[in-house]
Amino acid sequence: MTKQGPEVLGRDVEGCCPALLTAPLAEDQAAELARVFKALGDPVRLRLLSMIASQAGGEVCVCDLTPHFDLSQPTISHHLKLLRQAGLIDCERRGTWVYYWLIPEMTDRLAGILTRPAGTSLPDRADAAS
Amino acid sequence: MTKQGPEVLGRDVEGCCPALLTAPLAEDQAAELARVFKALGDPVRLRLLSMIASQAGGEVCVCDLTPHFDLSQPTISHHLKLLRQAGLIDCERRGTWVYYWLIPEMTDRLAGILTRPAGTSLPDRADAAS
Repeated sequence: MTKQGPEVLGRDVEGCCPALLTAPLAEDQAAELARVFKALGDPVRLRLLSMIASQAGGEVCVCDLTPHFDLSQPTISHHLKLLRQAGLIDCERRGTWVYYWLIPEMTDRLAGILTRPAGTSLPDRADAAS
Repeated sequence: MTKQGPEVLGRDVEGCCPALLTAPLAEDQAAELARVFKALGDPVRLRLLSMIASQAGGEVCVCDLTPHFDLSQPTISHHLKLLRQAGLIDCERRGTWVYYWLIPEMTDRLAGILTRPAGTSLPDRADAAS
């Protein structure tokens, strides 16, 4: 199995992130970022990601993921593939099983994208709406 | 037009957030969270959100959003509705126009959900993969 690092956002960010809350996104930035959020926009994939990310040892065998879902192995594998293509997880085959782990740089980047710059204040909507 | 605050995640969080990186998500948490990420999983909606969030005055008239897109007004309105239903933005009609603004509590929550707890360390994958 090919190892695959985060390919999304990589060319936009180097320890930082495209602006989302501070400036209008360019079309190509929006397209790349949407791909990652789309991967997160599914309950099964979110549960898979949370299981992988919260593993004490930092990685988990696919054989320990599937029993938690009432889904076929191919379906689980498809969801894992989408998370991997989005740069959120990576994996490696070792013998019979494939092991998955979080790519923390990607979740760090998304967190950064969604974090308002320090000192940002917004109008008091209660006042504005009155 | 009905004003609508963030309805998603509201019952799970009060200044905090459901675990995503630290514990497996429950099915209902994953379903709610997936709805928000799904709203973000579209380039047009991401661009709209970034335009709304980055407005100096904190809000923007829909009449200032549509010229940036080669899309019909109903299509733009549909995308804005999905962002609003996800609890990411809110709006208010004033005379002819509808004005939109970011709900920062929701993006703050998503950022929190995607932020690793302080002190979290993951195995060095370069070593693990060798």
